[in-house]
Amino acid sequence: MRRPTIKDVAERAKVSLKTVSRVINNEPSVMQGTRARVLHAIAELDYEPDPAARNLRSATPFVIGLVYDNPNPYHIIGVQNGVLAACRETGFGLQIQPCDSTSPLLAEELAEFVQRSRLAGLVLTAPMSERPELIAALSARGVQLVRIIAATEDPGDGPPCVYVDDRDAAYEITEHLIQLGHQRIGFLMGGMAHRSSTERHAGYEQALKDYGISPDKHLVIPGDYTFDDGFRGARRLLALREPPTAIFGSNDEIAAGVLAAAKSAGMNVPYDLSIAGFEDSPFSKQSWPPLTTAKQATEDIAKQAARLLIARLRQDAYADTPIALHNQGFTPQLVVRGSTAPVRPARAEAKTQSA
Amino acid sequence: MRRPTIKDVAERAKVSLKTVSRVINNEPSVMQGTRARVLHAIAELDYEPDPAARNLRSATPFVIGLVYDNPNPYHIIGVQNGVLAACRETGFGLQIQPCDSTSPLLAEELAEFVQRSRLAGLVLTAPMSERPELIAALSARGVQLVRIIAATEDPGDGPPCVYVDDRDAAYEITEHLIQLGHQRIGFLMGGMAHRSSTERHAGYEQALKDYGISPDKHLVIPGDYTFDDGFRGARRLLALREPPTAIFGSNDEIAAGVLAAAKSAGMNVPYDLSIAGFEDSPFSKQSWPPLTTAKQATEDIAKQAARLLIARLRQDAYADTPIALHNQGFTPQLVVRGSTAPVRPARAEAKTQSA
Repeated sequence: MRRPTIKDVAERAKVSLKTVSRVINNEPSVMQGTRARVLHAIAELDYEPDPAARNLRSATPFVIGLVYDNPNPYHIIGVQNGVLAACRETGFGLQIQPCDSTSPLLAEELAEFVQRSRLAGLVLTAPMSERPELIAALSARGVQLVRIIAATEDPGDGPPCVYVDDRDAAYEITEHLIQLGHQRIGFLMGGMAHRSSTERHAGYEQALKDYGISPDKHLVIPGDYTFDDGFRGARRLLALREPPTAIFGSNDEIAAGVLAAAKSAGMNVPYDLSIAGFEDSPFSKQSWPPLTTAKQATEDIAKQAARLLIARLRQDAYADTPIALHNQGFTPQLVVRGSTAPVRPARAEAKTQSA
Repeated sequence: MRRPTIKDVAERAKVSLKTVSRVINNEPSVMQGTRARVLHAIAELDYEPDPAARNLRSATPFVIGLVYDNPNPYHIIGVQNGVLAACRETGFGLQIQPCDSTSPLLAEELAEFVQRSRLAGLVLTAPMSERPELIAALSARGVQLVRIIAATEDPGDGPPCVYVDDRDAAYEITEHLIQLGHQRIGFLMGGMAHRSSTERHAGYEQALKDYGISPDKHLVIPGDYTFDDGFRGARRLLALREPPTAIFGSNDEIAAGVLAAAKSAGMNVPYDLSIAGFEDSPFSKQSWPPLTTAKQATEDIAKQAARLLIARLRQDAYADTPIALHNQGFTPQLVVRGSTAPVRPARAEAKTQSA
């Protein structure tokens, strides 16, 4: 029996020789369905591409890297799934690299990561994506990258980016709490290395100001984007002589910690305390009561970022891909669930009764 | 000023030329601390390796792939972190690839993934790792791999593996519930493609049998490893004419669904209903009450699996790495938290009162 050839594969899969060759060489320009048909034909015929020919495959690496330093597993998975979706569309592979954002050698380490793994480019998440000197150092080393950052508007310079208006969304959450009658609203910060943390705090402060509520510095507690810091922060707030009637955690992990602290203190959420988070993580839907939060569309944001990067890489490789390279903004949307309710006029009633 | 040489780097970093060369060529045999020192010296001197020399770098690819098809983000992150830890020890990179375990072309797709991305080998998770025909097809294509599987003992054949005794751990959880006085214990299955699901069910049945409790098929509900199936399954169980007093969800996501179903029905957990999960995910610690579960050590399991794979790859590459290649077993450990409590003799009391 003669050895099957590339022509046999093309006939069986009902595609051109060029398409078979593209699949074998993993060029990213083949549709998923066509690719599957070709792979199927290759399997049925037991066709083996000439190994020498395979070794001549394109030298362009079609793998990108995702770099993160974030304590929140749900957030990482969301970002990863978004980047993977963009990779799947285009036939790119994804290598992941957690890093220590405080390392003094970060630029060297990341450039080495790119070179060693022959990556075509990087998706940089916060806080790395928000450090101009790191971006400059990577660009100077020829690393192609896209940034996911917190910002109210397109920064308009530097490598491509996707920006998320955390400030506006935090304003909306705070406004929602104020409209429920809350005046003393606690705020638990996220990690200060993340610009999202200061942006969310700015949205909180602006809403208080616009509604004529004077900020009380005892109601704002520093911390990281973690459950433990949410738990600890809530306990500090609830121990105040005049505790808040609502607590806004800078992400859902923090809010989960607040919820646990409130319940362990025997409080009934939302009647004794309203709680809001930020992110719309699976936890926010699965907790009881489910959490009021801001839906962040993490997957879409990351997918769009990876698309921007890949479009640029393909332009460089083929100089013919007609994809526009616009930075894109996202604003998380308020999602109201069972963890927030109108303030209970407990003190007022108590006063009336004792009068 | 003369261009810095590799010798300058070696002197500044106080290491041998060979070590500098190893770092530049990313050979996996350099300790982390040494690697950092060399990178630091390279940065300080602004040393640039001869690009021609760099292109002659080892043709051996030091990247492995992690393949998964699992609906549970916490589980994926746990596995990923374990594999990344082993990669970090050894200088390997990690590419990730979600897949559709039901695809009829899975072997072709995975082999193509390995070839396209020039991966040295794969870490296969369940359910892919538990399908002998897939393992055989990949091995026939020369793909090096390690399997993470559910099994009570070392299978003793095929590629290296790490095996997790889910049956024994599920027995322990069921025994814990029985010892609290529960006789009617609901069981919510995980996805049937995963051997862990049938293993956990077998442990549940064995414990009932050993304690002389006859199994009731109405108490066992099929489903997937998801929150939604936990919620739905719990509602079915709680609607039974004689509902269970405890529910064992096959993983923590399922148990989270049970918790939400119980609370939405106004039940007080654990007094009205005991709930146990499996995995020791962050949710199990963060929910209220926190969940009794089996601590699965997902990161350690995955780390050990990746170590096995990398040890084998290095033996192949250098034929001198003195690392033993033993398969290793893990047994998840019972962790008792607030979601399980002694059965409340509600029916008995009610009868006595009405008599």
